[in-house]
Amino acid sequence: MKIGIVGIGLIGGSIALKLKQKGIADFIYGMDNSDKNLDEALHLNIIDEKTDVKNGIQQSDVIIIAIPVDVTRKILPEVLDIISESQTVMDVGSTKAGIVDAVKNHPKRSRFVAFHPMWGTENSGPKAAIAESFSGKAGVICNKEESAADALLLAENIIKNLDMHVMYMNAEAHDMHTAYISHISHLSSYALANTVLEKEKEEETIFQLASSGFSSTVRLAKSHPEMWVPIFKQNKENVLDVLNEHMLQLQKFKSALEKDDFEYVGELIKNANKIREILDK
Amino acid sequence: MKIGIVGIGLIGGSIALKLKQKGIADFIYGMDNSDKNLDEALHLNIIDEKTDVKNGIQQSDVIIIAIPVDVTRKILPEVLDIISESQTVMDVGSTKAGIVDAVKNHPKRSRFVAFHPMWGTENSGPKAAIAESFSGKAGVICNKEESAADALLLAENIIKNLDMHVMYMNAEAHDMHTAYISHISHLSSYALANTVLEKEKEEETIFQLASSGFSSTVRLAKSHPEMWVPIFKQNKENVLDVLNEHMLQLQKFKSALEKDDFEYVGELIKNANKIREILDK
Repeated sequence: MKIGIVGIGLIGGSIALKLKQKGIADFIYGMDNSDKNLDEALHLNIIDEKTDVKNGIQQSDVIIIAIPVDVTRKILPEVLDIISESQTVMDVGSTKAGIVDAVKNHPKRSRFVAFHPMWGTENSGPKAAIAESFSGKAGVICNKEESAADALLLAENIIKNLDMHVMYMNAEAHDMHTAYISHISHLSSYALANTVLEKEKEEETIFQLASSGFSSTVRLAKSHPEMWVPIFKQNKENVLDVLNEHMLQLQKFKSALEKDDFEYVGELIKNANKIREILDK
Repeated sequence: MKIGIVGIGLIGGSIALKLKQKGIADFIYGMDNSDKNLDEALHLNIIDEKTDVKNGIQQSDVIIIAIPVDVTRKILPEVLDIISESQTVMDVGSTKAGIVDAVKNHPKRSRFVAFHPMWGTENSGPKAAIAESFSGKAGVICNKEESAADALLLAENIIKNLDMHVMYMNAEAHDMHTAYISHISHLSSYALANTVLEKEKEEETIFQLASSGFSSTVRLAKSHPEMWVPIFKQNKENVLDVLNEHMLQLQKFKSALEKDDFEYVGELIKNANKIREILDK
């Protein structure tokens, strides 16, 4: 199978590595705005050939779009315009409602499978790509009833070859759940980094005192705006909803501390501890 | 050297393991309220003998107190009461001003070295102890001028044997910096866990969709209230100060999202990204 990957960064690169390793990709075409990314990807054997988008799409059985969600939303209809009925297109975007909406009435909508692999790191670019990244994580397919049976089967096969387990969701539900579980983590981490940068003017002290706990909590704050601004933009309502709840939860701690109500602080912490049972089951 | 450890949990146990491995501890006395902890620690060869606090303190050259900061504050004067001038006492508490204040005028104050190892995990108990945990991290000594020269030298030797680098700080400054860099991370993580638990009623969805990013951000929310309520209590003013700043930083994101000012969202993220340069240098 020939696979064309549009955007050969962290996610596109990791998919390429894994599908080559599994042997289901015979040949990988890399397409990217950045020639530096393409040369690095070639050098690292992540792709077999760098090419322009038009040629890459024509040559590939499957086209995987792995670029920021706003650009995906913009170019997806154009990609569907030029593919044949025997080709399949997937994306990997972290928001889904806007993307499926952009092609809702497209005559070749059924050739598209909306996909979101639940994995990522704070790093970017082909150098950050890791073949084993997706193992054991969920691979979410949205609005599967809008995809053709053969396109869906092909996408499911790719997801299983990434060693992910397939989950199905409605795009609206997906965006709500990811706002709750992923997007708010990023917002919280960005705000935490800004808090520390604002309060702690001694950078050397941050570096020296940073324990593994701090590093783990601000890790996501290293993630690039090019990816995350479009996510917050496309999922604005859900993100604001969960952000309001988060500020309410912080307010509970604040009021309890101000009132010296440490029994309530303890209750809030005990409640938070429940996350262990859910995550470590 | 005979070392007595009061509180043989994550930190006390990890110190015991490392000092035995390095050969500077010939014999370790374990003291703990929990007989289960003591038996586990014996079984895991973390301690050589379990004993009561009075006997353990009498037999040891160095006594390391590794229990919640409120209890340390309470028992530290009593420990100093019964030691001789040739013994040394250290604590490992995450807040320091209250602890040094509790023994400020104690006739044997100089036998005490206030110590904070900048390491911890969300786990607790002797089973969670790891010998290599402290390597490369900072070991902070507070108010060193209040300790006797020989006690200080002994404590520095222990800290170096934990493979930590020694830092010196005033207790008040320590509590301010740790509020900024460590305590707010925990508060933020607790509030994030409570946010997700409040919004996402489908526990299976949390488990399925939790990416490594989410897990890393809420990891600290698994930390026990027994340790963290006393920290927030003793460092209340500094914690409230940084919590206010944190809520202000979240408010900036909220206002920008509400106004569709995604350029400003991008600026906030770019600012947060600076944490990478500081942490990864």
